[in-house]
Order: sequence, then structure tokens, then C-alpha cells
Amino acid sequence: MPSAANLPPAPSGCVTLLTDFGLEDHYVGVLRGVVTRIFPGARIFDITHGVRPYNVAQAAFYLRHSYPYYPEGTVHVSVVDPGVGGARRPLVASAHGHYFIAPDNGLLSRILSRADEPEVREIDPDRWGLKPLSSTFHGRDIFAPAGAWLASGKPFAEMGPIVDEWVRLWPAEPREVNESLFHAPVLNIDRFGNIVTGFRPNDLRGASSFRLRVGSLDSTQLRETFEVSADPIVLLGSSGYLELCIRKASAADKAGAKIGDRAELALDV
Amino acid sequence: MPSAANLPPAPSGCVTLLTDFGLEDHYVGVLRGVVTRIFPGARIFDITHGVRPYNVAQAAFYLRHSYPYYPEGTVHVSVVDPGVGGARRPLVASAHGHYFIAPDNGLLSRILSRADEPEVREIDPDRWGLKPLSSTFHGRDIFAPAGAWLASGKPFAEMGPIVDEWVRLWPAEPREVNESLFHAPVLNIDRFGNIVTGFRPNDLRGASSFRLRVGSLDSTQLRETFEVSADPIVLLGSSGYLELCIRKASAADKAGAKIGDRAELALDV
Amino acid sequence: MPSAANLPPAPSGCVTLLTDFGLEDHYVGVLRGVVTRIFPGARIFDITHGVRPYNVAQAAFYLRHSYPYYPEGTVHVSVVDPGVGGARRPLVASAHGHYFIAPDNGLLSRILSRADEPEVREIDPDRWGLKPLSSTFHGRDIFAPAGAWLASGKPFAEMGPIVDEWVRLWPAEPREVNESLFHAPVLNIDRFGNIVTGFRPNDLRGASSFRLRVGSLDSTQLRETFEVSADPIVLLGSSGYLELCIRKASAADKAGAKIGDRAELALDV
Repeated sequence: MPSAANLPPAPSGCVTLLTDFGLEDHYVGVLRGVVTRIFPGARIFDITHGVRPYNVAQAAFYLRHSYPYYPEGTVHVSVVDPGVGGARRPLVASAHGHYFIAPDNGLLSRILSRADEPEVREIDPDRWGLKPLSSTFHGRDIFAPAGAWLASGKPFAEMGPIVDEWVRLWPAEPREVNESLFHAPVLNIDRFGNIVTGFRPNDLRGASSFRLRVGSLDSTQLRETFEVSADPIVLLGSSGYLELCIRKASAADKAGAKIGDRAELALDV
Repeated sequence: MPSAANLPPAPSGCVTLLTDFGLEDHYVGVLRGVVTRIFPGARIFDITHGVRPYNVAQAAFYLRHSYPYYPEGTVHVSVVDPGVGGARRPLVASAHGHYFIAPDNGLLSRILSRADEPEVREIDPDRWGLKPLSSTFHGRDIFAPAGAWLASGKPFAEMGPIVDEWVRLWPAEPREVNESLFHAPVLNIDRFGNIVTGFRPNDLRGASSFRLRVGSLDSTQLRETFEVSADPIVLLGSSGYLELCIRKASAADKAGAKIGDRAELALDV
Repeated sequence: MPSAANLPPAPSGCVTLLTDFGLEDHYVGVLRGVVTRIFPGARIFDITHGVRPYNVAQAAFYLRHSYPYYPEGTVHVSVVDPGVGGARRPLVASAHGHYFIAPDNGLLSRILSRADEPEVREIDPDRWGLKPLSSTFHGRDIFAPAGAWLASGKPFAEMGPIVDEWVRLWPAEPREVNESLFHAPVLNIDRFGNIVTGFRPNDLRGASSFRLRVGSLDSTQLRETFEVSADPIVLLGSSGYLELCIRKASAADKAGAKIGDRAELALDV
């Protein structure tokens, strides 16, 4: 039985959408209609629909760094779903005072790994989905409708049966190789080509010098802002991570880097 | 005189926008302002602004497959308008329990051809438009204002005089060439390059085998999801049509196909 | 002391967003959350997030030609901020019956230069910003929160101290070289490559002929709509300026033109 502190939050009426559908087609327009038709009072917000196609790790990063800015009780519907129509389950979770809806492919794992007592359920499409159920557009037929119903006040406990396991992405945290060398994954590459690593300022441990390397690119210079340099620099990004950047150029292209690649941090070089 | 069943629906307060303006410029931001200034209670939804420039047939497809997901009484404002400033008329229609506003260039024809007794009127810009009227931005000066007034409760009957004819696009339905060969147009090409044909599953008529061809590309394999194959496949798309697709590649590029091209379906090959 | 006519307007509850963040990343989604969390009743509208990166002059143009279509009392939050983290001040202005929030880099100068008695204040981040304050994302940490508080009804006078000077962009108005030759800047280049010059129809002064030139491209033909010609033409654009255009092609690419370049208007050629 959940403690009072873990009771599902009251819905805020807000529904966010996060997908890799892009904005060229009508798919996102359909999602917005589905939510509004079920719950006319919904306030709908796009986090982004520009996730690179099928890139679950990028979606997980965006979700992790967007949801805390929304009101508690918001329903976050995230659909990056390379396995649509296959066996993967549709999930809904209550964690951190918010609700999260997504396919079971790791998209929620950055959220759930940090939650004290997340409660995760498998959405019952027969009860909450549209009919007939297509095999290619579960965003429209399952995820958006379930999000709308939940935001409208339907009880979380009725969304479907509790599940105890879910797909997890590779760990986002740094790993110690030896006392002066650490590895962490590349968590994101933004549209300017800035490389967001899993290292945080604390990982520098007050060392007198360091080198951050991703692929063929490295930098030993920590800077406060972009204003200073045209060399590769290390910037403390807005999400709290160390980023490898080049002013007005794509660090990712120069490094040949992609999300999930290894970043290396050497201390006292 | 319309029967009760055909009385114009009560407005839902929702206004959708569908254009080829893109999101780079400020034009869509202006439309949103125009609607809100006239009708502060409007709930505004983007279907898409990514229609290929001047592609009326693509807009007609997106509208046809988006509007049913919105509440009845929604006003759908669609502006793909290569003839802006010319003689084409601004139309407003009541059909299927929704309202539709667009230039008279075929954009509404997929909606109207399926409606029992559509009522179509020519919008009176003197009464419902902004002043002065530009010759290049009727989205701002006629279509959005008329949509906002209609959504705010102004009577449909006062929008302007009834019209009996309007521009029609080429037919979307399949055509029988002989008992084992059928032609249908390509209705859409989505941003992944999937080719949406005018064929539906019923058009396979239980044949033991088939070949669907568009341009230089063909497939004999009907699949449930993308998970299975790297060859060209035929997928039942989310709008109910047979689509010619290649996993993680553009079928349209390989086929050299564009909207309006002919798709050929051969049965018992 | 302001006269009654200059009293700050009552907030409309509307907040517009205008940035160069693009829609691929999650940054705009974060802004929307920040506004909604502070002011749940906010109605949020995107003007555009497609300003070319760091292009303050383009943002100034979009803002100038979008805000009048929104209700009075709207708060317009504009963030194109190449100097983020540096010394430039965050500003809020009351002018033309609207509120404007932006960094002090010229973004507001097209608005303020036309206002009778604009009142401009420096936003106090300690009072209105998020904590901790990042050095790279003041849109999230200062501009969006200040806009949300202002839209929610916090008094304009409490936003921060009055400032008397601000950064100004180059003048947008035409300049007389001699009685038959005038110069004006290129104010914008839209996504179709149309070149928006600072000239208006009145600048033709009823001359019997003219030539409008930008870089290597020129035209002597004033046209009402796009329907007529495949040559370069001069069109009266929807914002009231003379535009150098080529039907279905990029005039800017052919001219080698960018925002801020000189347009030349010769009369009676």
C-alpha cells in the first residue's frame, strides 16, 4: 500500500507531447485532436517532436530535462516507438509527482531509475484506446487517449495492471576506470552539434587540469560562456552537464560523435 | 431548407490551422494572434504547417485524415493558396459536423465529396476580413479572421452567399483497368518517404498474391509492422491505406514518386 | 510620472515566445513549462522559433510585424541572445499597449524607436528569475519566468529599475543619396528567399519607372501577385514593404543577399 507521500498526484490538466514524428506530417495534429476530443479542458504542450527518428535515448534525455519545469500532476506522453505493433507494452508511471506514458523500450528509464518508489502500470488498450487499433500508430490509438483520460481525472490505479520490470537504457552515470580516468556516455547532441556528456562539474574533483575527449575531439578549457573562444571548449550546459562545444560549429560532426558514444575525462593531465 | 440533422453544429471553440507556411517565418505566429485577438477564448491547434509549398493535394489529404479526431463544431482553417490575390474565392463549408475554411482550389474537395449535404458559402471579406486587405496574405486577412468569428459563435449563414460549385481535385478512388489490374493515385508521401496509395485492404479482394507498383518500385509482401524486413514492403498505414515503404529509407526517392502519380495494383500475379 | 494614456496595460493573459532555439531540441518545451508552472492560466503562443541562430535583426523584424495582431496587454518574450552569460542586461518594456521582454542587444529597438513614451526597465533576476541561474539559458532562467510573472498580474513597475538607454540596431528607414537614388537595408529574408527591403510603396513617389537592386539582382517590374511572372519581380509584401522575389525560387540566393545588406532604389531610370 503506498504511503501518503506516494499517492498519485492530482492531475494538473496539462498534457505534454514528446515524439519523433516531426512537424511536417499531420501526425502531431492528430494527437492534439485526440487529446482534446477526449478531454476538452486539456492544456497541451509540445516538448519537442524533433527527436531523431527511433532515437529512444535522446527522447529519454529530453523528457528527463523537461518534465521538472511543468506543474506537478502533468501527464507526459512520449512516443518514440521503433517497435510499434510488436510485443512491447504500453506503460504509464507515477513518479516525482508527475505521470509518464510511453512504450516499454527504455524511454522512461532515466525517470524511473531516479524515483524512490515509482509505480508502473501496463495500459489496457481495450479500456483506454481507440477502436479499431492500428498496428502502426499507437501514439494516436493508445498513448494519447490514455494520457487524455488520465489528465481528465480517471484514476491512475485503473489504467492497467502493475508491472515490476521494464526495459532500461544503458547507464547515464560516469564510471571510474582508474583514479584519474573516467568514462561516461554522450547523453545528447543538440541541433547545434554540442556534445552533452554524462559528466558534471563535480566530476572534475577540483583537479588542477583535465582533458575531456569524445572521438577525435578534445578540450582542456572550461569556459563560462560561448563568448570567449573559437577552439573546442568545455561548457557547463543548461542541464547541468559538461558539454564539448565549438562556437558556431558542430562539435559532434568534428568528433564523429553520436548519442551513446563514450566520453573520456582525464584529470591532472 | 436543411433538415435538423444538417443544422450547422454548435462551435466547439477549437480552431485548427493547416498551411504550407512553415515554422521558420513569423506568418503562423501572426495567424495565431489574429484568431486570439478576435476570439480570446479560442483554443488553437496546429495540424501542420509543413505541407510542401503550394501542394494542395497534400493539404487535402492531411485535412481529411485529421479533422475527425477533433471535437464536432471545430473550425478547420486550411491555407495552401498558390492563387492568393487572384480570382479564386474564399470558402467556408459545413460538413460532417465540422466547419472548413479554405481557398477554392480543391483543398476541401476530399471533404465535400464524402459529405451528404454539404453547405458551402463564399466568405464575404468586407464583413469578416481585416482592413486593409493585402494581396499576398489572405491567411491573415481573410481565412483566420473568418475562422475566429465563426468559432466565436457568429452564424454560419451570415458568412456569405451559398455557392453550388467548387474546384475538385483528381479522384482519390481506385479505378478498375481489368479484373486483375487496378490504378489509384498516390495520395501522400510522408516525411520518411513512405508512399501512401489510394488502395485499401479490401482492394486486395482476397487474392492469393498481388504486386503493388509505383514508378520503379514494387512489392508483393504485405506486412503488419516495420519490424520485419529491409525489402520494400506493403504496410497498412495508420490512415487505412496501403503504403509502399522501405524500413529506414525513402521509398518515394527510390520509386521517383510524387503525390498524384499512379499506383498499380495487380492481383493473382 | 506617466500620463493616464501611458499607464501600463492590463495583462491579457497571453504570452508569446520568439526565439532562435529551433524546435528540434527540448528548449522551447522547457520555456512553455516554466511559463505554465508560474502562471497556470497563461495562454502561450509561438511567434516563431526559427530565427536564424544569433540573428537579432531578423528577430526584431518578426517581433515588429507580429505583436500588433495580439491582444493589448500581451507579454512578448523574445530570446535571441548571442551574449548570454555576458554583461548585457535583461529588459522589459511597456510600449504600444503591449509588454516586451528581451536581452538588451537591439532586439527591441524596432519597437521602442516607434513608441511615444516607452518605459523600459531592467529585469531583476534575483526577484523574478529561477534559482540557480545558469550562464547559458537565460530564456529559461530569466526571460520566461519574468514574462510569466508579468502576465500573471505582477506590476510592471516592480520588474526592476528604469533604464534610459538601450542598444539600437542600424536604422530600418530609407536614406536619400540624391533625388533619384535611395538606400535602405534588407530587413528580412523569408524561408522562400524573398528579400524584404526597407522601402515602402510611397518611396516610389509616383515615378514613371524604377529599378530596385540588391546585390547582383534587380527588377523594374512591380506586380500585385506571384501569379504573373518567372522573372525577378517587386511585390508589395504582406508587411507593407517592397520585396524582391522570384516565383518558386530564392531571390536571396541569386542576389547573394543577407539581412542588413543595402537595397538600392533608383527612380525614373
